[in-house]
Amino acid sequence: MIIELKPNVDSNQQQSIIEKITALGYKSMPVATQRSKYLVAIGKKEFDIRTIGHLSGIADIHRVPDEYKLVSKKWKVAPTVIDLGDGVTIGGNGLAIMAGPCSIENEKQIEQTIQHLVANQVPIMRGGVFKPRSSPYAFRGLGIDGLKLWYELARKNGIKIISEVMQVSQIESMLPYVDVFQVGARNTQNFNLLDELGKVDKPVMIKRGISGTIDELLSSAEYVFSAGNEKLILCERGIRTYEKASRNTMDINAIPILKAKSHLPVVADPSHGIGIREYVPQVALAATVAGADGIIYETHQKPEEAFSDGQQTLDFDESSRLIKRLRAAYNLIQD
Amino acid sequence: MIIELKPNVDSNQQQSIIEKITALGYKSMPVATQRSKYLVAIGKKEFDIRTIGHLSGIADIHRVPDEYKLVSKKWKVAPTVIDLGDGVTIGGNGLAIMAGPCSIENEKQIEQTIQHLVANQVPIMRGGVFKPRSSPYAFRGLGIDGLKLWYELARKNGIKIISEVMQVSQIESMLPYVDVFQVGARNTQNFNLLDELGKVDKPVMIKRGISGTIDELLSSAEYVFSAGNEKLILCERGIRTYEKASRNTMDINAIPILKAKSHLPVVADPSHGIGIREYVPQVALAATVAGADGIIYETHQKPEEAFSDGQQTLDFDESSRLIKRLRAAYNLIQD
Amino acid sequence: MIIELKPNVDSNQQQSIIEKITALGYKSMPVATQRSKYLVAIGKKEFDIRTIGHLSGIADIHRVPDEYKLVSKKWKVAPTVIDLGDGVTIGGNGLAIMAGPCSIENEKQIEQTIQHLVANQVPIMRGGVFKPRSSPYAFRGLGIDGLKLWYELARKNGIKIISEVMQVSQIESMLPYVDVFQVGARNTQNFNLLDELGKVDKPVMIKRGISGTIDELLSSAEYVFSAGNEKLILCERGIRTYEKASRNTMDINAIPILKAKSHLPVVADPSHGIGIREYVPQVALAATVAGADGIIYETHQKPEEAFSDGQQTLDFDESSRLIKRLRAAYNLIQD
Amino acid sequence: MIIELKPNVDSNQQQSIIEKITALGYKSMPVATQRSKYLVAIGKKEFDIRTIGHLSGIADIHRVPDEYKLVSKKWKVAPTVIDLGDGVTIGGNGLAIMAGPCSIENEKQIEQTIQHLVANQVPIMRGGVFKPRSSPYAFRGLGIDGLKLWYELARKNGIKIISEVMQVSQIESMLPYVDVFQVGARNTQNFNLLDELGKVDKPVMIKRGISGTIDELLSSAEYVFSAGNEKLILCERGIRTYEKASRNTMDINAIPILKAKSHLPVVADPSHGIGIREYVPQVALAATVAGADGIIYETHQKPEEAFSDGQQTLDFDESSRLIKRLRAAYNLIQD
Repeated sequence: MIIELKPNVDSNQQQSIIEKITALGYKSMPVATQRSKYLVAIGKKEFDIRTIGHLSGIADIHRVPDEYKLVSKKWKVAPTVIDLGDGVTIGGNGLAIMAGPCSIENEKQIEQTIQHLVANQVPIMRGGVFKPRSSPYAFRGLGIDGLKLWYELARKNGIKIISEVMQVSQIESMLPYVDVFQVGARNTQNFNLLDELGKVDKPVMIKRGISGTIDELLSSAEYVFSAGNEKLILCERGIRTYEKASRNTMDINAIPILKAKSHLPVVADPSHGIGIREYVPQVALAATVAGADGIIYETHQKPEEAFSDGQQTLDFDESSRLIKRLRAAYNLIQD
Repeated sequence: MIIELKPNVDSNQQQSIIEKITALGYKSMPVATQRSKYLVAIGKKEFDIRTIGHLSGIADIHRVPDEYKLVSKKWKVAPTVIDLGDGVTIGGNGLAIMAGPCSIENEKQIEQTIQHLVANQVPIMRGGVFKPRSSPYAFRGLGIDGLKLWYELARKNGIKIISEVMQVSQIESMLPYVDVFQVGARNTQNFNLLDELGKVDKPVMIKRGISGTIDELLSSAEYVFSAGNEKLILCERGIRTYEKASRNTMDINAIPILKAKSHLPVVADPSHGIGIREYVPQVALAATVAGADGIIYETHQKPEEAFSDGQQTLDFDESSRLIKRLRAAYNLIQD
Repeated sequence: MIIELKPNVDSNQQQSIIEKITALGYKSMPVATQRSKYLVAIGKKEFDIRTIGHLSGIADIHRVPDEYKLVSKKWKVAPTVIDLGDGVTIGGNGLAIMAGPCSIENEKQIEQTIQHLVANQVPIMRGGVFKPRSSPYAFRGLGIDGLKLWYELARKNGIKIISEVMQVSQIESMLPYVDVFQVGARNTQNFNLLDELGKVDKPVMIKRGISGTIDELLSSAEYVFSAGNEKLILCERGIRTYEKASRNTMDINAIPILKAKSHLPVVADPSHGIGIREYVPQVALAATVAGADGIIYETHQKPEEAFSDGQQTLDFDESSRLIKRLRAAYNLIQD
Repeated sequence: MIIELKPNVDSNQQQSIIEKITALGYKSMPVATQRSKYLVAIGKKEFDIRTIGHLSGIADIHRVPDEYKLVSKKWKVAPTVIDLGDGVTIGGNGLAIMAGPCSIENEKQIEQTIQHLVANQVPIMRGGVFKPRSSPYAFRGLGIDGLKLWYELARKNGIKIISEVMQVSQIESMLPYVDVFQVGARNTQNFNLLDELGKVDKPVMIKRGISGTIDELLSSAEYVFSAGNEKLILCERGIRTYEKASRNTMDINAIPILKAKSHLPVVADPSHGIGIREYVPQVALAATVAGADGIIYETHQKPEEAFSDGQQTLDFDESSRLIKRLRAAYNLIQD
């Protein structure tokens, strides 16, 4: 159950409400986000909502039978729109396209990528400066200095930045330089990281775990929301299955299911979803017509020379063609 | 290695070729289909193709390193088109739409479905008369009498029939009444059934196994082809994974991968692929823009009263809307 | 619900019972096996069992809420013992060991294997004469002649035979020469084959499907039982997962779970369960202490020359050592 | 390639070695652990080891073709033994048993558990004070105060402590109070946490990821080792599969495979491996005879009242019985 509190609720009123629902057999957890105040009440006993509805300080009450509450569509039907400023949004109307390299490598690469994005009216650039690598001997990214350089070049060109944060200690240093924090598939259930991102006033995109369920992804988003941050984006990026003909199995089903379960925007990552360069466009198109609010994919001026993920990265020609087709596909399903 | 033989090859010539490639360390298997004669040669030794290329009776030679040979795109680049007569085709140009109930139930249901298909210019009707059921106590279908009734009504209206064959003994009795035999997901590796379908001059659509790999599906098609039947269609219908929010996980990746590996047409089954009625259209659209040659889905005049699979079956209104959108999506990607 | 009928029930009595439970909202299916007569009643309505308990012809009534009924432990608590004659049993007391090659290859191989089994007091030999192979170009077994030869040599030495049946048409020809029919992992849901094996008076061992659930295995056994054959054995042989360090993932959990759900004996196949020769003994021991009633594994006089599965086949020395350890492990858990 | 350096190697010598192997086309990474100094060299070029073997400062050179190096058995054949002091060890000879509740709850619970362990000569107690929970509204553990209380009671009774560390910031505060840090299944690829644990002089047990591969587990151990900490233990705790009859699928195969690939001790967690109380003993026994060096499981004075995981927790009577059987099973396979 979600109890929306009035903006001007005072602590005595809040205390009375908590006591009342405790008496009804519910545990409650106060949540204050950038936008609003809530009490999330957990319990199973049936009761007549009117018995608490009259209490001072309550704006509205919603029953949410799901394990996740605040991210559920059962209390908030209108889609959440993430506003990155300068007219750039994710969710609501329009298809948000985000593209860029797996790893940020050097100034020239950043410049060429920005030029490619600007030419195609793509306002958000992806790229990693902290890279989670399964082997300790692999390239681990340029770090915060790479991010600062990227930020400087991106801002000059009106480009927004989405980049992965791997640990709590990186949040503060990254904060001024990113427009969206990305939580990677290996950190979907790094609950401390999620808690800390809940205290930040910047959007967070959470990737589904490597073999995470749809409900686990929603519960991870609930962590961030209940810790105070409503600016959330969900990302389907393929799951681990027995099939080895592709790097992951893109769970196309997850897109309409997530859209039906949650009010949060849903982005698809076809690069990791299939992991094979030549088929990335088909998967990106498929995700778009399945209802995704955005597509994030890897592109590089010379994929065969990329520091990482070259096998699933489009070159700029392929990327330009894909952008046109994505927009056409998105328009098609608006009718 | 595939050695295409000339149509007029005589048995002495064929014997000479076999002896030559046996001497080179290859095992060979003669294959005679409705269209052509081949020798499939299995071996690993490298040799100069010209040393056999001059032999009488050989039309062409193709190296195929895949485990499957005759279904591979490495020797036959042009897409295979399945011709059902009366201008109805699967593969090549155009999107083949096949729709109908999970189970054939009675005359009225057949008539209503046919009327719905005719109204939407859909020339192929699906339906089961032999139903594989995991419990022995569930409805197992109307059997051959249901098929005959269906055939009579379909033929009057110019509708083609695709229906599942579950065992060798059904092939002969079904043969006059189906236009495409369907091999179900539980029979993908029923090798005796595949062998027998190789002797039949009717198209066969093979569904991917419940947790079958892409390569296993191609090897199952190779069984039918090498037993003599080239008229093959592959079908992606979702795979079994840990995710239980949907009935199966539609492997959208499989569509471009199968199209790249094989010359056979690829059909997608969104009804089983996600298993939830309200999301079937999104998955169907996704499969279409991912490159499928056809879509097969379940529709019923009253899904909530269907004998089986009602939870994933569209009603006729939903079906009509979907057909229009599928055609628009297909046209979009032709540009 | 399972209604056990008295052995001398007459058709009028049976009809009265059926009418009574139909009136109560249940569907019923009469089952006559080699041992007994039953009515399996499917329905959900609660009622007082005493309202039918008094009817003539009824021996006993058991509620079974599982989807499978006759194979459930909820009505038959005592373990089923499969008697192969000459004191050879599977289930109940003692560990049934079954060993032999993947494929029956020739007379010498059969003789050497029998000699090895006799020397170790192992009374059941496994071996395939019809081999399901994913590629149509692989060795498909010696067929019925191989089985006859094997039978002759086995009988002389008091050895019982378990061998895979792949299709309905093989049942009759194999019947005189096998002691246990094996249904392979690709045929677990070949329902026609299961139905036909229900009409046979020989034990049947059903392997779990390649990615079959525990409940599906039990439902497959229900097919055979409800078609008339109670002599059933379940076999865990590993499942398909994302992990590729082993051929399959041996589901050790399935052993205690199957033993708790069903009265049927449970056999483990460590050769397919891990697929790597050097680790087969550890997995076999693990399955034994987890509660398996039997172990079936592959052994060959020269595994490196075996026609198939050599990489997971023990030589005779390894096999002899394993047999001793299995018996010690089995004795350990009897205390 | 692992180059073991002499204990007294000086920086000039080390520099010369690095230059030489760089010239050979290898990248190198110096590793200094509590025990030894190494250069890990990554590259693919073949060369004669003798061309560098003579350099001053080199103790030994080992080729390791695996992606992980320092945890591989290919350079260190002797099993690693983790010494917790007071004669308590994990690995080498003997079966290490670790038991205790899922969550540390209160003083009385700790005392009762310790009493149970002492009575059974079990010297290591498990328990969580920081609990990773998929829902933000679930109990998250007593925190560091709970650990201090536990430590005090444990030390009085000669009991060692293993407990989960969830994030970098907890390491320092937990350090004085744990004997083994546990990395949970959701943190197996939390690379920052692994890096930091590499700087600590306390043993670390890494659980396999929820759907982690065997190779990923070894690479995660490589992270800790290459950051300086050799005191590592691997833990198999079941993987996520399509089968839902058990909480996870215990990968019994992983035990012999990990033992063959790595010199590190391998512990099995049957409580999470199957997740059903009544079958935990069978799975524990299975893991023991499959070659595990230790068993970690959940026990509680009243499982039905446990704060978490009660459904998979043994009571003390069941636990006492299991301990006896585990020791008997371990002895059996020593022969």
